[in-house]
Amino acid sequence: MKNDSGIAVKEKLICGVDLGGTKLAAALYRQDGSLVAKDVVYDHKDKNWDEIVQIVADLVKKLMADHSLTSRDLLGLGVALAGHIYFKKGLIITVSNFAENIYNYPFVDKLSVLLPGLRIILDNDANAQAYGEYLFGAGRGYQNQVFVTVSTGIGGGIIINGKMFRGRTGTTGEIGHSIIDIDSDIKCTCGNYGCAMALASGLFFPDLYRMHLRRGMKSSIGIDEGSAEGLDGPAIEEGLKKGDPICRKIVEDSADVVGSSLYNLFKILEPELVILGGGLMYFGQEYFQRIKKRFLGHTHEMMAEEMEIKLAETGRDAGLLGAAALVLEEA
Amino acid sequence: MKNDSGIAVKEKLICGVDLGGTKLAAALYRQDGSLVAKDVVYDHKDKNWDEIVQIVADLVKKLMADHSLTSRDLLGLGVALAGHIYFKKGLIITVSNFAENIYNYPFVDKLSVLLPGLRIILDNDANAQAYGEYLFGAGRGYQNQVFVTVSTGIGGGIIINGKMFRGRTGTTGEIGHSIIDIDSDIKCTCGNYGCAMALASGLFFPDLYRMHLRRGMKSSIGIDEGSAEGLDGPAIEEGLKKGDPICRKIVEDSADVVGSSLYNLFKILEPELVILGGGLMYFGQEYFQRIKKRFLGHTHEMMAEEMEIKLAETGRDAGLLGAAALVLEEA
Repeated sequence: MKNDSGIAVKEKLICGVDLGGTKLAAALYRQDGSLVAKDVVYDHKDKNWDEIVQIVADLVKKLMADHSLTSRDLLGLGVALAGHIYFKKGLIITVSNFAENIYNYPFVDKLSVLLPGLRIILDNDANAQAYGEYLFGAGRGYQNQVFVTVSTGIGGGIIINGKMFRGRTGTTGEIGHSIIDIDSDIKCTCGNYGCAMALASGLFFPDLYRMHLRRGMKSSIGIDEGSAEGLDGPAIEEGLKKGDPICRKIVEDSADVVGSSLYNLFKILEPELVILGGGLMYFGQEYFQRIKKRFLGHTHEMMAEEMEIKLAETGRDAGLLGAAALVLEEA
Repeated sequence: MKNDSGIAVKEKLICGVDLGGTKLAAALYRQDGSLVAKDVVYDHKDKNWDEIVQIVADLVKKLMADHSLTSRDLLGLGVALAGHIYFKKGLIITVSNFAENIYNYPFVDKLSVLLPGLRIILDNDANAQAYGEYLFGAGRGYQNQVFVTVSTGIGGGIIINGKMFRGRTGTTGEIGHSIIDIDSDIKCTCGNYGCAMALASGLFFPDLYRMHLRRGMKSSIGIDEGSAEGLDGPAIEEGLKKGDPICRKIVEDSADVVGSSLYNLFKILEPELVILGGGLMYFGQEYFQRIKKRFLGHTHEMMAEEMEIKLAETGRDAGLLGAAALVLEEA
């Protein structure tokens, strides 16, 4: 890289922080998305928000110090957080999987005090992943695309005309909280019934397992109403491999709900591409193909041009890379 | 209006055509949306598409001749059509309420041959209404908004950053064909089950009435399975006024489905404003307020900034004015 005078200058790095309920990761990347360094801590798990901000600042400072960097060597810092974000104001509207519940917490302002001179961007983790996939993953070259993560919950991010679309405050793309079964008696964490998330995501696998037991299905892996509580994604995957009919039913229903949700997205936004990421994609090709089949079944060959459905490519560090990618986004 | 030399020139008019299954309307408007002249015919009802194109051309020519206008006096012609439109290519992908079914019919090319020198724009009627509301109605001044029409069917149009958002081919905003009851046994015209349209729009009132009769509800206005066939929006409104419990149930359920659909739109796009139009809005304030209440109930006070819900303002000629408005849209 050269400056205006033709003299070689050091390319600025981008920094990403992925702040989850249990895991806090930070990394430095080059502007082409290649990793320079990464660090992970779990120290923030039971802390309040002012303490979390301090831990994030310390982690970023350590990463910079380890590589002899000052804030001038960075283009900026992107923070991806699992929660409702007021993007323009840098606020956390609310979160549900941290020790301290907050409302309209000024995260960016607080972190800026501890990291002076650094441009800081805060966004929802699904939005960050969406932008990471757009710049560095399966979404390269598509101007209108939606990223959907199917994991403990279900989230999403929307790219329109090559830019993140954040709506009024930044809470767009919440496909998981779209109601897809208006008569459902399964209550989501948001308080509504029949959200896609409540019918298809890992958080609800224990509830769904118990529901099928109560409706008369038999567990072939010895799970009862009590032991169902521990059934996360990997446990369901394990049960599926062992041939448990309830695990199979849950995985099939999950694929169908995600497939129908993608169809709803198609009817509203008609993007060129939907990218699927998140932990449940590790269920494998059968799951992915069932989602696609369900989607295509709804279209009844009514698509003038086919909407592509691809698997995410940025891998298990999608949130971290995505957070850093946000720094490259033009305001 | 003055030209570059400061000499007063005649402002060009805009022409709109609203092409429905039974009614064909054309009108001339000034660029401020004020009406100059309007004409309505029903001649095309049982015709094939080449004949319909001829009838549209004749109607526009007559309107121009009546006002001594040439194609140079018009900024262009917008055509709003109830059907799937491939916007950029000017094709009708398909329709369902015309005598001749077609697939990828080159409507704009065919009409252009008959109306040489005139810029012609073809769009879905809900998109046209959305743009009309944006320029001349309840949507003035809002950059991100969604228009939803609740009528015989349910359709919609999306404005993002002050422009129509048409996705890849132009079939965006189809909120009516979003699946909101994944377990429903009510089949929509699109072939899917549980679309919002099938649960809430006028076309399905006879099916819904029969369903409630079969489930044991009693009609207090003497409707049985046979006579339910004729129950359109006005008939249901009449029954509601007479206190029929099934009519009340249908109207309440319709409001609830529309309200939940608006919530789903909010979770995906978080627009500043949703505008509600279409024939069923004539059910009145109780219907409109129930929609809003349902929407707000889902939000659980989780909106950082309130999404407004307003009634459409462009009235019964919304499609016609909207069609003309499309001419003012920058490509």
